[in-house]
Amino acid sequence: MKKVVICGVGLIGGSFALGLRRAGVVNEIVGFGRSVASVQQALQLGVIDRVGEDIATEVRDADLVLLATPVGSMAEWMARIAPHLGANTLVTDGGSTKTNVVQDAYAQLGNKVGQFVPAHPIAGAEKSGASAAMADLYVGKKVVITPLPENSPAAVQRVKDAWLACGAHIFELSHTEHDAIFAAVSHLPHLLSFALVHDLAQRDNRELLLSFAASGFRDFTRIAASSPDMWRDISLANRDALLNEITAYQVELASLRLALQNSDGAALHQIFSEAQAIRRDWLGK
Amino acid sequence: MKKVVICGVGLIGGSFALGLRRAGVVNEIVGFGRSVASVQQALQLGVIDRVGEDIATEVRDADLVLLATPVGSMAEWMARIAPHLGANTLVTDGGSTKTNVVQDAYAQLGNKVGQFVPAHPIAGAEKSGASAAMADLYVGKKVVITPLPENSPAAVQRVKDAWLACGAHIFELSHTEHDAIFAAVSHLPHLLSFALVHDLAQRDNRELLLSFAASGFRDFTRIAASSPDMWRDISLANRDALLNEITAYQVELASLRLALQNSDGAALHQIFSEAQAIRRDWLGK
Repeated sequence: MKKVVICGVGLIGGSFALGLRRAGVVNEIVGFGRSVASVQQALQLGVIDRVGEDIATEVRDADLVLLATPVGSMAEWMARIAPHLGANTLVTDGGSTKTNVVQDAYAQLGNKVGQFVPAHPIAGAEKSGASAAMADLYVGKKVVITPLPENSPAAVQRVKDAWLACGAHIFELSHTEHDAIFAAVSHLPHLLSFALVHDLAQRDNRELLLSFAASGFRDFTRIAASSPDMWRDISLANRDALLNEITAYQVELASLRLALQNSDGAALHQIFSEAQAIRRDWLGK
Repeated sequence: MKKVVICGVGLIGGSFALGLRRAGVVNEIVGFGRSVASVQQALQLGVIDRVGEDIATEVRDADLVLLATPVGSMAEWMARIAPHLGANTLVTDGGSTKTNVVQDAYAQLGNKVGQFVPAHPIAGAEKSGASAAMADLYVGKKVVITPLPENSPAAVQRVKDAWLACGAHIFELSHTEHDAIFAAVSHLPHLLSFALVHDLAQRDNRELLLSFAASGFRDFTRIAASSPDMWRDISLANRDALLNEITAYQVELASLRLALQNSDGAALHQIFSEAQAIRRDWLGK
């Protein structure tokens, strides 16, 4: 590729840039961002080659544009690039939700929507910003592509090739399948982790409590150190699937609470055993 | 110390044995356990020096007895040792709950209760068994001592010295303070993690779901791989404090759910921001 444009040079966008450069598949990487400071930082760190000034000019002859902003800002970036997208320019994204991004694409890109191939790289980290970007972030990680009926096979393949160059394994799902799955295995755990820390944060004796928190707490709450902007956007974007998951979890927790209230050791043991078996089996894979 | 007796040669008991030996503060370590196989394994691994046969004989002239069994079995072990405890033999434990263990001690040890100095080493690991034991498990970790009014200062100091020899930092709390604190920062997160995995385990599409689970899920659910026996016992032993914590968490989760239902991005952002700040601050300490 001669030129790749990255909108949002944080962990996701910056790591895509570094991964493509390491693979030797791109000549020039141009970065745009929310603030001058963040893009300048990406330049100084060598994540991008050049700070973009006029997005209209840059996306006209780019081979690929990555939208790696919080999912709540995707529509705005799509609106900015839509009138100027060259005929050979493809667009992909790094959003953790897909249904709302696809809706944004239909609304903003109009008859150019076929040039947009939605993607979700499954490479979370509680860190954010260009300084957290790594060339190997996507190596061995899954990237889910949720192609649109308007995408040509060639367009899908070109976007897959870019993610493959970063070392990722590619999977295809529909955007609704994607959002239901990630509500369960990613978005719900994030909300539960935020909720635990917030619960403790309200206590008068929180310093004492936290002074005795240990490795179990550390791992359980690692994802509560994630970006509030990003997770507000993801929660709102995947609201319906996530509400379903919270409800299912509330039922589960109420059932566990009842077993405890009844001092029903056998019921507790069964819940814990089934969970332990599934968790160990999952880790072994 | 000339002789230390370990009842329960798993992760906690085995690591205590290895830590004491490495510190050079004990001549002989005798092990008892739930099964012949587990104690034989501890012997073969060099965790203990000798497999105990008659507990009455062994605790008569031991300097220290560690009860490192699941908290649900403490009373039974106390009953076995009580009639035979020598006048200079002290007892400590490694239980994750303290109020019930203290109750067991008053009931089983009678007028020898002053020889029992309750302890809780804060060194969790999802692994269990003698094969998981490590000489450095307690190095730099907290051990909470919850002394009884019947303990002499000398008895408390001797038990502290043993844990200090393993590399631990010693803290003192009352047993009720201890249980309230650990219900919040340890027992609740364990139950929440078990509940999430159990929730997903019930789904018809659980294989698909779990195939897309990534590092956030991995860390959130690490503690769901913990021993079901141990966590059944802890849950029942600390039932009242844990029920209070589950209730508080249910209120928190309902409030978060309401914000999401109302698509209240500002409220979600506030919850996530407060949690993130507290979590990052905690990790920095």
